[in-house]
Amino acid sequence: MESELIEHLRRRIPSHPRLRLGLGDDAAVLRMGDIDECVMTVDLLTDGVDFELGKVDPRRVGRKALAVNLSDLAAMAALPLAGVVALALPRRGGLDLAIALYEGLLPLAEEYELAIAGGDTNSWDGPLAISITLMGKSAAEDGALRRDGALPGDKIIVTGRFGGSILSHQFDFDPRVREAILLNERYRLHAGIDVSDGLAIDLAHIAKESGCGAVLDLDAVPVAEDAKRLAVQLGDGRSALEHALGDGEDFELILAVPADEAARMLEDQPLDVLLTAVGEFAGEPGLWQTDSRKGKRRLEPGGWEHKFD
Amino acid sequence: MESELIEHLRRRIPSHPRLRLGLGDDAAVLRMGDIDECVMTVDLLTDGVDFELGKVDPRRVGRKALAVNLSDLAAMAALPLAGVVALALPRRGGLDLAIALYEGLLPLAEEYELAIAGGDTNSWDGPLAISITLMGKSAAEDGALRRDGALPGDKIIVTGRFGGSILSHQFDFDPRVREAILLNERYRLHAGIDVSDGLAIDLAHIAKESGCGAVLDLDAVPVAEDAKRLAVQLGDGRSALEHALGDGEDFELILAVPADEAARMLEDQPLDVLLTAVGEFAGEPGLWQTDSRKGKRRLEPGGWEHKFD
Repeated sequence: MESELIEHLRRRIPSHPRLRLGLGDDAAVLRMGDIDECVMTVDLLTDGVDFELGKVDPRRVGRKALAVNLSDLAAMAALPLAGVVALALPRRGGLDLAIALYEGLLPLAEEYELAIAGGDTNSWDGPLAISITLMGKSAAEDGALRRDGALPGDKIIVTGRFGGSILSHQFDFDPRVREAILLNERYRLHAGIDVSDGLAIDLAHIAKESGCGAVLDLDAVPVAEDAKRLAVQLGDGRSALEHALGDGEDFELILAVPADEAARMLEDQPLDVLLTAVGEFAGEPGLWQTDSRKGKRRLEPGGWEHKFD
Repeated sequence: MESELIEHLRRRIPSHPRLRLGLGDDAAVLRMGDIDECVMTVDLLTDGVDFELGKVDPRRVGRKALAVNLSDLAAMAALPLAGVVALALPRRGGLDLAIALYEGLLPLAEEYELAIAGGDTNSWDGPLAISITLMGKSAAEDGALRRDGALPGDKIIVTGRFGGSILSHQFDFDPRVREAILLNERYRLHAGIDVSDGLAIDLAHIAKESGCGAVLDLDAVPVAEDAKRLAVQLGDGRSALEHALGDGEDFELILAVPADEAARMLEDQPLDVLLTAVGEFAGEPGLWQTDSRKGKRRLEPGGWEHKFD
């Protein structure tokens, strides 16, 4: 499992004076020249896992491949600067596919004033794999937003709504770059992550990295319309709320915000997208759920992780 | 073909004030903070094209994946700073494979004081793909070495020997990072490239990007022992020289050097590895060969390019 590999590598990879924050966060933070907080992130998407090429316009795949990387920068409240694109293309139709992928990603790059600096284009007998690396820089004076700064008593604040991303949001989402930068400028944020694996598991990630626990208030979770639609469509007994907790690929932000700042933020509602308090971080480790009916109890995170045999 | 895609993208990707050198060179050059010449490069290697996982120790694959990227930085005479690693792993044995890949690349990273800043590790039903992105910075005051600066009359200087890389050099080569930085500091270099596709085709790349031609002196080409061995082993009528011109993956440097500087450089021989003059750049476009027997004539570059259907 990916977490096992990260644990292994954390022991194995030596610390480096240039590296301020290494493996295990949404992106790495480096000293580069006079940029104290240069943020570097990579995401590789593959056919059959992150998309199914036969079922989706490749332009949406190209857009998504860039958007998930921008979402990682958003999780660090970092400003996108430059990126490179590596493609492993199936031989048949590879050139047209590459052109379509770039057609999907270039408008998003322009929207975020991101310089597409280069790439590497390969053909092979395997399916499509697309890897994008982005450089950004911390937009705030007090540095990049990390996963490991949440404190007991911090409110859990989320952007947007959750669940049912498979119906379209997983391709067409807006990475919360501008939102994260604005919030990080105007409010004191302790920690942040973007929701790729799932609301519950990504909340557990913040809590674990911060050495604390988290209590999720189920009554407060903003459930997306698509989560409700998906629950009805599937009719397998999983509720819209369960989809909101576990589907993942919402690419919204989870933030750890001191209580007074959170109150101000919720009062201000400074974004176009809704900000909601969905619980708080706690001293007791682990992930917990609570609601008006059953009270506080453990929450099994579920969600997504790459499985190896 | 990759060159078609690059031509397409050069028209399509807008210029960006941050981007000093975009698609088509060994790496991109960016302004980042006070680093005027930040160099960014990506290479993606795939099973069945760049290596065959059943036939080679995965540690050598990991080492190669990093070394080819370091070689791209060498081609820019850039100092390596930081890198990220993206893996698409087959599900069966994925974790062990990932660990072996890192075991191969980490010692090389340490040797070059490169910070491995992060990565993305995925499993899928496809074969292994490994994509590494490196950041570096120009080590010289007059900036990164590019492909497009060769002038007619410049000598073609190469490091090392060529051909037969498939016998071992393609995995175990030393990227010419230190050599490129030293040469770029001590001598006036007009252009440079590393030989991945093949001596002839990569020489043609420099000439084309520089808007000039190149005449390769066949009698002067330093032929590797492995090229001679391979010619004998295969016994298909291809000479050791032909292997030297076309095999590729030598990861040596081709440099365009003004004649007086070239003379000084060859006299000095400042490297542990041999420097050889193998011809000169010329006003007449195209790639030419010459030797003592037949005189000057066209040279078809051959070599490697990713083919699409």
